[in-house]
Amino acid sequence: MDTQVFAALSAETLPARLGGNTILKEKIGGDSARWQVTEVGDGNLNLVFIVTGDKGAAIVKQALPYVRLVGESWPLPLKRSYFEYHALVRQSARDPGMVPEIFFFDAVQAIIVMEYLTPHVILRRALIDGRALPKIGRDLGLFCARTLFRGSDLSMVTREKKADMALFADNVELCDITENLVFSDPYFEAKLNRHTSPQLDPLVAELRADRDLKVEAQRLKHLFSAKAETLCHGDLHTGSVMVTDEETRVIDPEFAFYGPISFDVGMLLANFWMSYFAQSGHESGSAGRDDMRAYLLDTIETIWETFRAEFAHLWRSERAGILYPASLFEDRGDLLGAEQALNIVLDEIYREMLGFAGIEMHRRILGLAHNADFETIADPDRRATCERKALKLGRHLAVNRHRIHSLKDVRATAERLEKETLA
Amino acid sequence: MDTQVFAALSAETLPARLGGNTILKEKIGGDSARWQVTEVGDGNLNLVFIVTGDKGAAIVKQALPYVRLVGESWPLPLKRSYFEYHALVRQSARDPGMVPEIFFFDAVQAIIVMEYLTPHVILRRALIDGRALPKIGRDLGLFCARTLFRGSDLSMVTREKKADMALFADNVELCDITENLVFSDPYFEAKLNRHTSPQLDPLVAELRADRDLKVEAQRLKHLFSAKAETLCHGDLHTGSVMVTDEETRVIDPEFAFYGPISFDVGMLLANFWMSYFAQSGHESGSAGRDDMRAYLLDTIETIWETFRAEFAHLWRSERAGILYPASLFEDRGDLLGAEQALNIVLDEIYREMLGFAGIEMHRRILGLAHNADFETIADPDRRATCERKALKLGRHLAVNRHRIHSLKDVRATAERLEKETLA
Repeated sequence: MDTQVFAALSAETLPARLGGNTILKEKIGGDSARWQVTEVGDGNLNLVFIVTGDKGAAIVKQALPYVRLVGESWPLPLKRSYFEYHALVRQSARDPGMVPEIFFFDAVQAIIVMEYLTPHVILRRALIDGRALPKIGRDLGLFCARTLFRGSDLSMVTREKKADMALFADNVELCDITENLVFSDPYFEAKLNRHTSPQLDPLVAELRADRDLKVEAQRLKHLFSAKAETLCHGDLHTGSVMVTDEETRVIDPEFAFYGPISFDVGMLLANFWMSYFAQSGHESGSAGRDDMRAYLLDTIETIWETFRAEFAHLWRSERAGILYPASLFEDRGDLLGAEQALNIVLDEIYREMLGFAGIEMHRRILGLAHNADFETIADPDRRATCERKALKLGRHLAVNRHRIHSLKDVRATAERLEKETLA
Repeated sequence: MDTQVFAALSAETLPARLGGNTILKEKIGGDSARWQVTEVGDGNLNLVFIVTGDKGAAIVKQALPYVRLVGESWPLPLKRSYFEYHALVRQSARDPGMVPEIFFFDAVQAIIVMEYLTPHVILRRALIDGRALPKIGRDLGLFCARTLFRGSDLSMVTREKKADMALFADNVELCDITENLVFSDPYFEAKLNRHTSPQLDPLVAELRADRDLKVEAQRLKHLFSAKAETLCHGDLHTGSVMVTDEETRVIDPEFAFYGPISFDVGMLLANFWMSYFAQSGHESGSAGRDDMRAYLLDTIETIWETFRAEFAHLWRSERAGILYPASLFEDRGDLLGAEQALNIVLDEIYREMLGFAGIEMHRRILGLAHNADFETIADPDRRATCERKALKLGRHLAVNRHRIHSLKDVRATAERLEKETLA
């Protein structure tokens, strides 16, 4: 086989194609004739195989030259696999143990072979099932703070940060997806949009006529496109997290790009607020989800407070980059100068985070890529009731992000929305 | 000669080295034995020759592998010539006629051969001489608006903008100079600093103990390092502008980088405010400079108002990039949505511009690279009196940039400072 030409794997061809790979053989067992291969990709873009041999199992993830969800009519370059690989390497260094271990990367075949996580499940799935994971709040807060702080000019040698920014600047097709599908399409009648219709039609019309909201969405797009502050995961939703009660792992950073520190955090929290509003759609009979709802709002606060605390800790202990150098502050006895700057930076992250969270809630209900949280609610009336609340909170956050004092206030608003709409 | 190895030109070797260049021969005359060569570089970094032949003249600019001002102890890569060349090409396309015509570029020898501007003089020199140029306000305002708007995601195809950002991200050594010399060194006792001493010592101590100022300077550095909004000139002061009464040309964009739209404008206006405060140092006997001072403040307002008007014009007529797309606003009858966003964007540029202007005034008086405006005032007491006003205005702008309503207010403050300190 010409190894310089891309060819999609299949469960049938995988053992022959990768059977000579010494790293994989060592990890899962050398007799590739005995490998068992299952295709498990349920995402929108890629092939994902679990390969099990005599000694163990591994994940083989391969990019396709098009968007799997849509088909060959929407080409998407294989190089996204290269960016995913590089993002995983950096995240692994910045928050060790929080991403799958990489065994092998083949750029031409766009294949990443990595650790098979078991018995981990996708976090989104667990939340839909009403399962409260005890550790995710803290783990995800730490992950965000560590990867985002350590990837920025607060920490990196600026020469390396600029070179890395140039490397990831080529991930243009995946940024283009976000630029269109997240920030613009939901706010007009774009071709790829869909929503629960006709139930949501009046609210959708209202949102698409909402000038302040549209302007805010574009302000946030401006930040997305021009605030090259740190290496973001780029697609940090609950479908990109795998969990057990003990462990949390973050996967799928192929949308990685240099962007605002606030972006990943906002995307992540939005998915928890959506899970919160989706719970009533999954309640059955007497088995209420009040505890689950409280757990989700608690988790949002834990993620945020952990993020803030860890970011502040890294600011005070690891601020070795070109920004806010100790030579101007601590080294001159001006501790409070550094604290003042920290307050300003964290406040800015907070305001932006609320904005990104708001528009993420819109695009998941009005755009192309919907969430299983809502999609698995079969009854469209019931689904629309859940989605309506998320849309309203999203608008509230995006437009009022400079006026909302804290996440306690968002909690109160979310709880009020949840109750009133049910009444 | 091995053309793959860099060798610095001299007035003596230039005709032999470039005598075979057909483009140059065509421009200035083919008989290189008759070329007259004068070295005129008065900048901090490069060699600059005027080469005159039978048919005409050209400028030969060559980078050196170190900082000319400091010497070989401070290496600086030749590739800055490559970035200067690419910046000139882009500026020429974005505001035709406002940069010198390029005849030839040699990356290995770091040589740019370009149009010889005559009888143009350096704008800074003209202003020191008390010469009021009638067209610069409008020309420079247009140049800023056109190059900065057209180099951003408001106008460019985002794929091309990202590729260009990656290209210029390698201009790391020149960004490093700005990062250190502009944003940090002036605010502590850095090795390369110097200032008019002991006259300024008390004010310098005050500024270096000023927490709000230091935090703002670092906030602005944060913007410089992470707001990759457009291709900036990067060093747009009055020494980078050549003028006659009829023509304005912008030169020397070797510091070009992707940064905030506000950066060039702020740097530029700061140099006019410094010129304003320097005038009294150049007054002799009865020949007062009141008219010149009024002209300078008028010019600042003209640059800014022209910039705003042209930026708004381009926003309304050329906004074809991914940001604030017409598909969300004008195409849906929502003209005011686009106007609302324009107001927000211009306000942000204004606030940042004031900040960059403020710190530029500090670094030119407290840092390594001083201005001829002040440096040519021989008497240190007189010089310090001028510099003191500029330092104070700089602090005022940087710290109060969110509170200053308009440039009319800055004018009033500058005039008051000028009078009070003279009193």
